Amino acid sequence: MKKLNMNVVVIGGSAAGLVAAMTSKSFYPEKSVMVIRKEPKVMIPCGIPYIFGTLGTSDKNVLPDGGLLKLGISIKVDTVNDINVENHTVRTDDDTVITYERLIIATGSQPSIPKFIAGTDLDNVFTVPKNKEYLDHFHSKLDKLKKIAVIGAGFIGVEMSDELNKRGNDVTLIEIEKHILGAAFDEDSSVIGETLLTERGIKLLLGVGVKAIQGNGKVESILLNNGEIIEVDAVVLSTGYVPNTSLAKAAGISINKNGCIKCDAYMRTHQKDIFTVGDCAQKRDFITGKLTPIMLASTACAEARIAAMNLYNLSTIKTFNGTISIYSTNIGDTTFGVAGITESRAKEEGFDIIIGSFKGMDRHPGKLNNPHYQSVKLVVAKYSGLVLGGEIVGGVSAGELTNVLGFVIQNKMTVTDLLCSQIGTQPMLTASPAAYPLIKAAESIAKQLICKC
Amino acid sequence: MKKLNMNVVVIGGSAAGLVAAMTSKSFYPEKSVMVIRKEPKVMIPCGIPYIFGTLGTSDKNVLPDGGLLKLGISIKVDTVNDINVENHTVRTDDDTVITYERLIIATGSQPSIPKFIAGTDLDNVFTVPKNKEYLDHFHSKLDKLKKIAVIGAGFIGVEMSDELNKRGNDVTLIEIEKHILGAAFDEDSSVIGETLLTERGIKLLLGVGVKAIQGNGKVESILLNNGEIIEVDAVVLSTGYVPNTSLAKAAGISINKNGCIKCDAYMRTHQKDIFTVGDCAQKRDFITGKLTPIMLASTACAEARIAAMNLYNLSTIKTFNGTISIYSTNIGDTTFGVAGITESRAKEEGFDIIIGSFKGMDRHPGKLNNPHYQSVKLVVAKYSGLVLGGEIVGGVSAGELTNVLGFVIQNKMTVTDLLCSQIGTQPMLTASPAAYPLIKAAESIAKQLICKC
Repeated sequence: MKKLNMNVVVIGGSAAGLVAAMTSKSFYPEKSVMVIRKEPKVMIPCGIPYIFGTLGTSDKNVLPDGGLLKLGISIKVDTVNDINVENHTVRTDDDTVITYERLIIATGSQPSIPKFIAGTDLDNVFTVPKNKEYLDHFHSKLDKLKKIAVIGAGFIGVEMSDELNKRGNDVTLIEIEKHILGAAFDEDSSVIGETLLTERGIKLLLGVGVKAIQGNGKVESILLNNGEIIEVDAVVLSTGYVPNTSLAKAAGISINKNGCIKCDAYMRTHQKDIFTVGDCAQKRDFITGKLTPIMLASTACAEARIAAMNLYNLSTIKTFNGTISIYSTNIGDTTFGVAGITESRAKEEGFDIIIGSFKGMDRHPGKLNNPHYQSVKLVVAKYSGLVLGGEIVGGVSAGELTNVLGFVIQNKMTVTDLLCSQIGTQPMLTASPAAYPLIKAAESIAKQLICKC
Repeated sequence: MKKLNMNVVVIGGSAAGLVAAMTSKSFYPEKSVMVIRKEPKVMIPCGIPYIFGTLGTSDKNVLPDGGLLKLGISIKVDTVNDINVENHTVRTDDDTVITYERLIIATGSQPSIPKFIAGTDLDNVFTVPKNKEYLDHFHSKLDKLKKIAVIGAGFIGVEMSDELNKRGNDVTLIEIEKHILGAAFDEDSSVIGETLLTERGIKLLLGVGVKAIQGNGKVESILLNNGEIIEVDAVVLSTGYVPNTSLAKAAGISINKNGCIKCDAYMRTHQKDIFTVGDCAQKRDFITGKLTPIMLASTACAEARIAAMNLYNLSTIKTFNGTISIYSTNIGDTTFGVAGITESRAKEEGFDIIIGSFKGMDRHPGKLNNPHYQSVKLVVAKYSGLVLGGEIVGGVSAGELTNVLGFVIQNKMTVTDLLCSQIGTQPMLTASPAAYPLIKAAESIAKQLICKC
């Protein structure tokens, strides 16, 4: 048995672990910090779908270690097999026992394999884990697997479908819900995405479940719930992710009903010296306060910064106040962005809301410099005027415009605040100041409020 | 004499007038609204430089009237020659007297012609007014005017130079200050812009003034302050704009020492039924509270919305709390954005500040989908941690990222708030969540604060 003493130990080396370690060292430079991770090379998590088409290789999607090493953070490529809460130690597979003052659990998530689908153990059934070796193996087989069914049309399923289609595979995307991206977007945005995917040559099967993956040893076909059989050479399961919490559970750390590690606004578990961040950590929705299963690298990084800042010095102004779910994706040259609550979820939750929307161009005049239409939809609480959420469909700049919306929600701005806001506009870069869709959508809500008075 | 009765009269039909009229009608649908403007066709103000190169014609840069007409707003193409404050009337050149309940003065600005330069009255000396006929005449002469000197390297001067260069003219940009865009950006950003302009074939003469424009009836050369003479065929004066306030002044409406119409946070002049918005209206800096000469269409539109909402019903939550100066421009595929106060101006004003910056890529991995580097510099108040300003250099998405920064400043967020903020990231659209330059720049400031404790 080897022994090592560290001040801060981070378990997990993906986005959350990396940011937790780097922020720890930035805020507590005198502390020794170690990241223990399984992977020799870490994949940029959101970049994984792009390995298959645009990038062409996982080697271009490696999260660099330079930032960690430059700060003097130790990296240990190993598996933690035990956390001893009482002794403040972790043990790794090479029989090293490492003491910590503060531990950050960032063990992430892994693909969820649905039990209600038979045949998921066949050859050429793939998942999309954050594991370079697995992804390289998967990638290497694709040339011989022409027809692919992607099951599950969340972000990963949509991006995987588009990238597999880009590299020349024949792709069918199957979703049990009525629309793609249904957990994130309202129907109107989803329908636009469906049209784009279809135009790009992807076959969509919506509102239909998969009963079984069939074949003799390897995938040959898929049996749908409606009895239809589709011949395919491979299946990609993009049916969600489950948090990796067995290590925490074995150490007696509290887990919530969603299977995530419980934590407070400082990202502390019920053990005061143990923090948790990223996909394995509990999330609460910023708007509803409810537990939410959302997993996003960007949320993970925010949690990681907050945990790290609070390690040795709790601060009530450095807390995590709920997940806003700000994210975006793109299909071709069209970007889909969302922040906060959607219209349909707001209604389900019982919010009395008003919807406003506006469609314009993301340049002015609208024919300048590679323009794209830009539509913004806002979900606003009826009496307070508070912006609860919104969706954007546009060009590349809609990614950052989604962040503008994120800051509107984070700062609890109202429609009136938006109407009094200053924005910067430029012909080649943004919508017009006189028809900026975010502001015009707010105006359309204000008009509805007036008419009802 | 004809007579007309209106509820709301707006003088001026550019961005501020348009938005003021449309917002008035939206918020007070029962009121009759009229826009009186000189121009049969209104130019999109910020789009004017692009007429000469990218668009190729002013016809593609017309602000559409559809929005006004659809709302039932009257447009009168005429010149107001008198405001009678006591009678609540305006008179136009065609001898119509129009009564108003509320008047909005949005008379804009016109090019300032420096008195210290001789020869500005020669043929082929041009300015850049918001006047289609003038611009068309100017444009029509460009084929025969090969060598052009642009005097003044603010936004308009830089954009005009780049566009004239694009259309094939031989351009020399002359600036009396040491750097281009010096009123808006710190030296580091300006230098990047200078390199880009030079690479694109524009000759830069910095830190040198123009004594005289010389020629026999028409431009033949320029005499610089250092005695040097440059042969040119034409001169573009982009030496700033002066507010159009003679009409207001003649009506006894108070003017400030910068020559702008005085107004309060509701955009009211000292006459309670007369509002003013846009380039002719007084501006105060959001950070310093001082009068500022800034003129931006986006600021003008925010003022217009606020004036219109307050016309018949003042609301303290619908006020204009100072100009943040959020703007951006681009040279080639590089975007320059700025919001709030610059480092150099903060120092001049006596703020105790900390600077933080970070340079990364606007995609992740950094080689995906037409990437551009993205650098963010933040100017932060040392003791409060309040974000006072920032600059961004990046790709197209830096335009909207500048708006993110604008919302950070508007919401009086601190470095700590930024570090606890959630952002949305996507490989094809934004920087990485682990190295998002806006957040990393905040982190670099937080580190400096820790080290100094």
